[in-house]
Amino acid sequence: MPEVLRVRVAFADTDAMGVAWHGNYLRWFEMARTELMRPTELPYPVLVGRGIHLPLIEALVRYRNPARYDDLLIVRAGPVRARGVRLRIDYRIECDERLIVDGHTEHAFTDAAGRVIRPPRDVQEVFARLSGAHGG
Amino acid sequence: MPEVLRVRVAFADTDAMGVAWHGNYLRWFEMARTELMRPTELPYPVLVGRGIHLPLIEALVRYRNPARYDDLLIVRAGPVRARGVRLRIDYRIECDERLIVDGHTEHAFTDAAGRVIRPPRDVQEVFARLSGAHGG
Amino acid sequence: MPEVLRVRVAFADTDAMGVAWHGNYLRWFEMARTELMRPTELPYPVLVGRGIHLPLIEALVRYRNPARYDDLLIVRAGPVRARGVRLRIDYRIECDERLIVDGHTEHAFTDAAGRVIRPPRDVQEVFARLSGAHGG
Amino acid sequence: MPEVLRVRVAFADTDAMGVAWHGNYLRWFEMARTELMRPTELPYPVLVGRGIHLPLIEALVRYRNPARYDDLLIVRAGPVRARGVRLRIDYRIECDERLIVDGHTEHAFTDAAGRVIRPPRDVQEVFARLSGAHGG
Repeated sequence: MPEVLRVRVAFADTDAMGVAWHGNYLRWFEMARTELMRPTELPYPVLVGRGIHLPLIEALVRYRNPARYDDLLIVRAGPVRARGVRLRIDYRIECDERLIVDGHTEHAFTDAAGRVIRPPRDVQEVFARLSGAHGG
Repeated sequence: MPEVLRVRVAFADTDAMGVAWHGNYLRWFEMARTELMRPTELPYPVLVGRGIHLPLIEALVRYRNPARYDDLLIVRAGPVRARGVRLRIDYRIECDERLIVDGHTEHAFTDAAGRVIRPPRDVQEVFARLSGAHGG
Repeated sequence: MPEVLRVRVAFADTDAMGVAWHGNYLRWFEMARTELMRPTELPYPVLVGRGIHLPLIEALVRYRNPARYDDLLIVRAGPVRARGVRLRIDYRIECDERLIVDGHTEHAFTDAAGRVIRPPRDVQEVFARLSGAHGG
Repeated sequence: MPEVLRVRVAFADTDAMGVAWHGNYLRWFEMARTELMRPTELPYPVLVGRGIHLPLIEALVRYRNPARYDDLLIVRAGPVRARGVRLRIDYRIECDERLIVDGHTEHAFTDAAGRVIRPPRDVQEVFARLSGAHGG
């Protein structure tokens, strides 16, 4: 699974157990999605500018090992699997060869008002290429 | 599923789509766990004081409807299902009769150093009673 | 200074020093602003619905004592001082008679596009009354 | 003021006004402190490992212009001014030559239990050198 982002655990990200608070991983998954799209013709801000949104339908995180303050996390994402009005992306976050979390998110294609839409042809093609690129 | 907490969506909780950012639900699930334990002999701070922690193994959130700034959310939790060194809790968050999210978290019983432990008898009994109380 | 809100320190709010992370106080100040406006004719969502926003110009927090997981914080706010296109609010957060933080925020009245505006007469009146009510 | 960090505004960092939520700047100031110390003999995790902490006494943020989703922020910090048991650091955050926020934080040197301490000689020297390096 290709690396799409490196992110440092900030002190603000830790909790009183001395580890990265578990909810932060959804933030790092989200940052990975932005980076996954950046090199395509449809970086996420462009997609949003065209009125196409990808709200979450489901998020799953499996916590394997804790991360600590100042750890440098490697965030991997892919494959992207688009089917009709839905999209699924898998993630792995590692630190020094240790698996920290893995999981996935599922999204719907919607317009700005939140109505489910079938993505236009060129958008479909970008996601189809992302799938291929990541072996999906 | 019994109501354990009411929480208002703060402006800080919203994102640029105008809805509660999806990662906040893990925070509200966590607050619900604190409230679930509060009326027992082992409120969460007491549990932690005894060196017993409940780090997450897995979290799943299914997003059903968006919540917005100032919405008053009803957070329901239960049943609590403890089996050996593991614990699972289900959640539903509603607003004005609409289902906003549902999901679950799975936890391991560990000591302060993160080593998995079998919970002492009295801790087991509190969780067994919580299971019963919530129909689990 | 009148109490406008009680808020529990969630586990998510703590950091690896075992105390409430310092940035959270801006969130609690913001929640206090929502509660300050709620009993008026112009609760914050109504104000926003009329296209009037109150973005921050300045925030100051003085940290007096740490707060810990599950502490019940009393958030006090007032007086509200509106002068022309600006607004200043003072805050104090306490726990068990101990002062945790105090500080203030300053805001500009703007339209939805962020242009500074002079608030309409009825909005001015609500803020004038809030000032009076809190001894400002 | 030297650049110490570049940080992207994540979608999670935005609020319903479509801009970076104002509390996030304290997080970015904190990340800048970590980076300021990294190239010294006393990176922040080492300092903490020696039982020396730098809790906040005061934080001030002046908001000049909004930042938006995916903006690449340049975080500048310095000079570091240590006097006795206290430390003050100034910050500026910019985006495309626009000033977004400026401000400062003040810190006390404490031990792990939060008692104010005079920093040991070698710690004083590191901070004295940081002051010099940043023109303070």
